[in-house]
Amino acid sequence: MDQLLLKLEDNFEEMVSIRRYLHEHPELSHQEIHTPAYIANYHRELGLEVREFVGGRGVVATLKGAKPGKTVALRADFDALAIQELNDFLYKSKNEGVMHACGHDGHTATLLVLAKALTEMRDQLSGTIVFIHQHAEELAPGGAKAMIEDGCLDGVDVIFGTHLWAPTPLGEVLVREGAIMAAADRFEIAIQGKGGHGAEPQHSVDAIVVGAHFVTQLQTIVSRRIAPLESAVVTLGQFEAINPFNVIADTVKMQGTVRAFDEQVRRQMKEEIELLLKATCLGMHADYRFDYLDGYPPVINHVEQTQLVAQIANETPGVEKVTVCSPFMIGEDYGYYMQHVPGTFFFTGAKDPDWETVYPHHHARFDFDERAMLIAAKVLGQATLEFLLTEQREEE
Amino acid sequence: MDQLLLKLEDNFEEMVSIRRYLHEHPELSHQEIHTPAYIANYHRELGLEVREFVGGRGVVATLKGAKPGKTVALRADFDALAIQELNDFLYKSKNEGVMHACGHDGHTATLLVLAKALTEMRDQLSGTIVFIHQHAEELAPGGAKAMIEDGCLDGVDVIFGTHLWAPTPLGEVLVREGAIMAAADRFEIAIQGKGGHGAEPQHSVDAIVVGAHFVTQLQTIVSRRIAPLESAVVTLGQFEAINPFNVIADTVKMQGTVRAFDEQVRRQMKEEIELLLKATCLGMHADYRFDYLDGYPPVINHVEQTQLVAQIANETPGVEKVTVCSPFMIGEDYGYYMQHVPGTFFFTGAKDPDWETVYPHHHARFDFDERAMLIAAKVLGQATLEFLLTEQREEE
Amino acid sequence: MDQLLLKLEDNFEEMVSIRRYLHEHPELSHQEIHTPAYIANYHRELGLEVREFVGGRGVVATLKGAKPGKTVALRADFDALAIQELNDFLYKSKNEGVMHACGHDGHTATLLVLAKALTEMRDQLSGTIVFIHQHAEELAPGGAKAMIEDGCLDGVDVIFGTHLWAPTPLGEVLVREGAIMAAADRFEIAIQGKGGHGAEPQHSVDAIVVGAHFVTQLQTIVSRRIAPLESAVVTLGQFEAINPFNVIADTVKMQGTVRAFDEQVRRQMKEEIELLLKATCLGMHADYRFDYLDGYPPVINHVEQTQLVAQIANETPGVEKVTVCSPFMIGEDYGYYMQHVPGTFFFTGAKDPDWETVYPHHHARFDFDERAMLIAAKVLGQATLEFLLTEQREEE
Amino acid sequence: MDQLLLKLEDNFEEMVSIRRYLHEHPELSHQEIHTPAYIANYHRELGLEVREFVGGRGVVATLKGAKPGKTVALRADFDALAIQELNDFLYKSKNEGVMHACGHDGHTATLLVLAKALTEMRDQLSGTIVFIHQHAEELAPGGAKAMIEDGCLDGVDVIFGTHLWAPTPLGEVLVREGAIMAAADRFEIAIQGKGGHGAEPQHSVDAIVVGAHFVTQLQTIVSRRIAPLESAVVTLGQFEAINPFNVIADTVKMQGTVRAFDEQVRRQMKEEIELLLKATCLGMHADYRFDYLDGYPPVINHVEQTQLVAQIANETPGVEKVTVCSPFMIGEDYGYYMQHVPGTFFFTGAKDPDWETVYPHHHARFDFDERAMLIAAKVLGQATLEFLLTEQREEE
Repeated sequence: MDQLLLKLEDNFEEMVSIRRYLHEHPELSHQEIHTPAYIANYHRELGLEVREFVGGRGVVATLKGAKPGKTVALRADFDALAIQELNDFLYKSKNEGVMHACGHDGHTATLLVLAKALTEMRDQLSGTIVFIHQHAEELAPGGAKAMIEDGCLDGVDVIFGTHLWAPTPLGEVLVREGAIMAAADRFEIAIQGKGGHGAEPQHSVDAIVVGAHFVTQLQTIVSRRIAPLESAVVTLGQFEAINPFNVIADTVKMQGTVRAFDEQVRRQMKEEIELLLKATCLGMHADYRFDYLDGYPPVINHVEQTQLVAQIANETPGVEKVTVCSPFMIGEDYGYYMQHVPGTFFFTGAKDPDWETVYPHHHARFDFDERAMLIAAKVLGQATLEFLLTEQREEE
Repeated sequence: MDQLLLKLEDNFEEMVSIRRYLHEHPELSHQEIHTPAYIANYHRELGLEVREFVGGRGVVATLKGAKPGKTVALRADFDALAIQELNDFLYKSKNEGVMHACGHDGHTATLLVLAKALTEMRDQLSGTIVFIHQHAEELAPGGAKAMIEDGCLDGVDVIFGTHLWAPTPLGEVLVREGAIMAAADRFEIAIQGKGGHGAEPQHSVDAIVVGAHFVTQLQTIVSRRIAPLESAVVTLGQFEAINPFNVIADTVKMQGTVRAFDEQVRRQMKEEIELLLKATCLGMHADYRFDYLDGYPPVINHVEQTQLVAQIANETPGVEKVTVCSPFMIGEDYGYYMQHVPGTFFFTGAKDPDWETVYPHHHARFDFDERAMLIAAKVLGQATLEFLLTEQREEE
Repeated sequence: MDQLLLKLEDNFEEMVSIRRYLHEHPELSHQEIHTPAYIANYHRELGLEVREFVGGRGVVATLKGAKPGKTVALRADFDALAIQELNDFLYKSKNEGVMHACGHDGHTATLLVLAKALTEMRDQLSGTIVFIHQHAEELAPGGAKAMIEDGCLDGVDVIFGTHLWAPTPLGEVLVREGAIMAAADRFEIAIQGKGGHGAEPQHSVDAIVVGAHFVTQLQTIVSRRIAPLESAVVTLGQFEAINPFNVIADTVKMQGTVRAFDEQVRRQMKEEIELLLKATCLGMHADYRFDYLDGYPPVINHVEQTQLVAQIANETPGVEKVTVCSPFMIGEDYGYYMQHVPGTFFFTGAKDPDWETVYPHHHARFDFDERAMLIAAKVLGQATLEFLLTEQREEE
Repeated sequence: MDQLLLKLEDNFEEMVSIRRYLHEHPELSHQEIHTPAYIANYHRELGLEVREFVGGRGVVATLKGAKPGKTVALRADFDALAIQELNDFLYKSKNEGVMHACGHDGHTATLLVLAKALTEMRDQLSGTIVFIHQHAEELAPGGAKAMIEDGCLDGVDVIFGTHLWAPTPLGEVLVREGAIMAAADRFEIAIQGKGGHGAEPQHSVDAIVVGAHFVTQLQTIVSRRIAPLESAVVTLGQFEAINPFNVIADTVKMQGTVRAFDEQVRRQMKEEIELLLKATCLGMHADYRFDYLDGYPPVINHVEQTQLVAQIANETPGVEKVTVCSPFMIGEDYGYYMQHVPGTFFFTGAKDPDWETVYPHHHARFDFDERAMLIAAKVLGQATLEFLLTEQREEE
């Protein structure tokens, strides 16, 4: 296995140059053209079997080892964001208003060079490695679901993935068994009362008053209906009722989000929100409309694969610390993959130790320490080899 | 008509002595025995036709005038209260724990002596006068309803009644067209949640939280559902959920009252309370029980009879001031009579001008200025004569 | 006094033609130029003493009777509204987007022709009559306050005024002792919380939640703090918090109105609103801004003047019915005058009996039965003469 | 170390007989007399140094090894509960109304026999072992705090403790780094309004309405103020306002509990409750009293000691499964010890696999599988030896 580490180190410069090239040419979710073509071409030149336009714009490359064995999938996303880059390094975005501000350029470079190194080791490989390059992670409904439906996980036994993470120092790897990222849903509500003159409430149904009582009752979902040991959030970002000062509101429009790690909690929250809305309107002579839009499911890591990655990371040169992190309330569509096959998702620290300021992901000045790609490639690659090896031994 | 005034003045001492005798022998609502017997006897001795046990314990005496005409009813209630009298005058209650603390002794004495005076004027009377002595005014469902069902208003054209009123100075009479006293209903609520350990709200339905949200929503009935020009009150006197500090309440018990002058407002409030209760429980997984007990209807004075009494009062010796009062939020079962025949109910000021302290009605030291009885008898009597005379003239 | 009635009837056609001329040339509040000039000119031609630009754009004309006596003021407002007229009669508005949609054209015509008739009776008059033509009734702070400060009530003993009222049938006059129109105030609120990511409420102060609890508590002012026999309304027309669905609101903006007939109730409501706002924000770590803008005071009729008008109206040809109305929750700046001198304000029914549809005041198709002007002029004029006559007799 | 396991197995019968003797003779918290005397005597007979009446009724025995080294404390509590036992085995409680219904008899027997076994190994011991027998775990303020203040931890380097746990199967051991049991506090609230007649809210301050708004706002602490990843509960078990149906409540009494694992969250909740109470009362003209009674702090396990125990448990005969458990929302005063020295607390499964029904702790039919004591003694003892050995090696 040390062989892989050496190969990756030898190819680090290529990794950096691929990343910078992609950084210069970012493409928006569901609008990716050149990036998947670039990826497909790279894999083809390695001699791998390549399938394009998987589930839309995804690319899947397959490396068959010399000997039979299990199949490991590795996933990297490749879409960018509608942000005007404010960095001024040489390789900054050449596409107006589009920027790789979440590190997906790095994910792609990591996976391509890892594919190159593993391809060179094909003779020693027992099993198959599937490189899943996913489009449209940033924009619901995301690319993962469509790629899965289009067969990208067919025959796959386990899946590994990582996110380069700028807020965490280079050399630290974050792992967590179970939920590591939240489900993040969206809902829209309209409460229909009956407008009227502000001096004559008796002839109206004051939608603001109905809405206010709904909001106060909404708090009881988290405070009383969800177990204290679970994490759950329901937030309303919008409460809109705009009328002259002396006119009773006939409508209130609301929008909000639900966050949860547990699928059952998530379903319960949806039901409780609608039940409270229905009941509050019933009691106050109002009507309502409720639209609940499922976002990505939670990212729930499997125990065995997470332990494998934690152990590999611990042994990987460049990794100084493997931390069991708290789960993140943000979302990722990686969770879809693990609804089908076991696997894990981890965070690879990418904060340059010399930086004083770290810009958060999705910021116009976002950047990451490129050495993190090397660490990510090593952990993903070694975990892949270790998994195939272990399975092979068990077979024997 | 001056004749009546003189007769009443001449008999004032008897009025006082009857009142004091009754004051010494108070009887509780629905338990009156000696009082109605005393009343019946008095009327019989006057030679009037008397019917006893009307609607339970009521007494109705009928005075037929020499000439035909309309029929006027005059009503006085005669029950006492479960109060231990603290007055120390000679004629204080001889019945332990029972007291005429609302002036019904005075009402009765007034009506008896008025009957005597009018009987002496029988030859000049064109029409009939019905003396309604009502039991059980203090205790719902009250005596009025039963007496009416038992025929006490048969043939009656109008009804007059008054309440001696200690907070208002002697010499002042309070009248009001329309609602003068409120409907006063009672309701009982039980919210059934699901108890549990205080640390595990997710397995419980916290009845206190359900109840609190019900109470906050309850405020919207008066603030938003009832017209600002109407008067309406909903008060909860009881909110009872008693558990150890770390146990989630499985039940809340509530009791409350509704007050309104308008029958439709009263009905609406009952419906809105139940609707809010039902809805709040629906939204929070609780059940409920709702019992609404109709109290007395509002006392709603008819315009014509009220104007007649106001005019008569203005001309009555001893009356210094006739005031159009604000309505009272308290209740009376006199309202039942005016659901069947037109009439009016007024307050006769009974505060002795020399008193520094006035004890409120239902107080253990309650008393009233006995001269108010004379004023009440004069106004009731003169209004009766005036009504009969006017009707007679119109006939002609 | 019959002389006045005849004179008015003789001049009814002029009244109509003045009204229609004014209707064609409406002017917005505080922007009146031609209307006050027209009024001033009319009075000058009658030979009255005229003062222009009183308190801004008001006009005051004074008629001194031949004999000394008291001084009566009569008030009519003359501003129009920013409404595009949809009527298609010949005399419809010639000013784009401006319309006499509340009958102030009629008020003015009524008062001018009444002035003419009374001027012709100058020899018989004992006392003085002041014709107050007020600008800007429709737009707070209104013209009344400024005209009073500029002396329009100097020396005045009583004031009379009326509103032509399209919802009430021609021939009916509405009077009421005490409050007949409400105080109508406006307030603006900003709740300042702290924005943040929807998934991290702990780092934010959710202004929507603060606002919702404020709104629910607001209901207790009417339900618990104000006497059931009083009328009071607090309505929020605006609750504005517009953010993406997953962003915690940092601010809520509200606007609302307070209505009350009693000055003390009005003051209390202002205080209770601010106290609840302050307290809710205190409990939830938010800040607030509260701006309360006093609108017009309630219109509170004096008893004696109201009884005089009711009695006069009863005797006036054309008046079929004098009704004691319920108070209106809408506002008028006429209340300012009666803070200084006794008086009354009444409504003159102006619904043409042949109309099937009546458009409400401030509607683009608003109109009124012009015969109402004649009734209004008669009642105002006769009440004026009666008042002066009575005072004169008392002097003697 | 196998030597210890053998010794414990050899002495299992004594363990059982001690447990049964103690079970027959339970004593209430802070009233323990015979139990501590029995414990002290046992240790004295082993030849250990014994201190009695530590912090009240605690007993501390010290075993000094032959060689110098670190000091390990082992803790067992020994108080019983005010429950009338309903079990009918031979060794059931002989004390009326008092019962060992939480397994503290087992804790004590475990520790005594463990002390015996370790004492026999004194020659091989490098370091000191302190046996802390604690009184009054069941009743706040508990015995731990007082024993610590009385020096029971002086010189101690680490502490280990366990709870026999009937809901968990025999053979399973529950461990958890960080918070394993919650802080559990109590608070009492009185809201002082102003009573009055139910029909006259304007003269009162309705304490039920104030209380209801307080309860609804209280929900926002958990829903908005505490991080979703934290666990927090605030429950009101009592809301008491008992008046006749038509009387406005002048007072509400409440009692409740706060649960949290994090000390800062716990402090914040106390502050937020009081702030909301203060604010709600301020906004509604009420006063309040707030008493917050600190219960036990959370039990927060240290990482190193927990990992040691988990590893030892994994290797211990009889232990089939070591589970990382979710934290428990219930409380224990063991947390006090770990505020001073590092250590861990774990649960030893004690459900007899043959039982169909398991009675919960504090139930009148509570029992546990006595073989769990042997497992507990082995894990505690081996962890102690391993710790001393490791420290000794590091010294060298």
